[in-house]
Amino acid sequence: MDTATMDLDAIKQSMAKTNDLFSSEVFGKRNFAAIDQIYTRDARILPPGRQMASGRPEIKGFWYDIIRSFNARSAVLESVDVIAAGEGVVEIGKALLTAHPAGQPEVQWDVKYVVLWKQEDGQWKWHVDIWNMNA
Amino acid sequence: MDTATMDLDAIKQSMAKTNDLFSSEVFGKRNFAAIDQIYTRDARILPPGRQMASGRPEIKGFWYDIIRSFNARSAVLESVDVIAAGEGVVEIGKALLTAHPAGQPEVQWDVKYVVLWKQEDGQWKWHVDIWNMNA
Repeated sequence: MDTATMDLDAIKQSMAKTNDLFSSEVFGKRNFAAIDQIYTRDARILPPGRQMASGRPEIKGFWYDIIRSFNARSAVLESVDVIAAGEGVVEIGKALLTAHPAGQPEVQWDVKYVVLWKQEDGQWKWHVDIWNMNA
Repeated sequence: MDTATMDLDAIKQSMAKTNDLFSSEVFGKRNFAAIDQIYTRDARILPPGRQMASGRPEIKGFWYDIIRSFNARSAVLESVDVIAAGEGVVEIGKALLTAHPAGQPEVQWDVKYVVLWKQEDGQWKWHVDIWNMNA
């Protein structure tokens, strides 16, 4: 089904639930199993300073490493724009990441991102996820 | 028109022409007017280390600054994947940027990117453009 003919507000609400899972479960509780509800099976992430990673096992490994090694505390995501894109949606967003590495002061990163969303098993999930830092 | 029902190979050929313009005109000849043929009027770029920039005047200013201040010499783009996305297309790609700053050795950056493409005035152009470095 083409998202241009769907209720974009309903999709946005569903997207907000997925984004909240990332904040509350992955960053908040370090529940990496929740990544199954956030990323599609064949999702790809393109993280700064690393090679592209493909599929949930690699993506879980990435977030596990990052969140533990930086002692990441929170990720606050905000949609800036949502563009209908066939069966998917392209989101432009920003995020504030907070971490507290052992023995160091708290650090924050202003991040911006682009995510191609896709519906899988009735849920809106991240299919292609790329981001970078503002500074 | 939905790109899922169009000839994706024909679109890819048209996309390759736009990518070539970026390499040959913008990086090769520093012809920043060619950006009109590469980015849509209301395109957005999300460069690492900077805020998002919107519209061609801001985008021209960005590339003008970067290419001159780093004495950038070449940008070689390669499509890794092209995904039909409604009236647009999402491209995952990689790029090799070469620069030769005054008084310094030549430097190269391995870059990966995601571009949402859109047709404007009969040409396929970059509508949302985000990238980061591999290292």
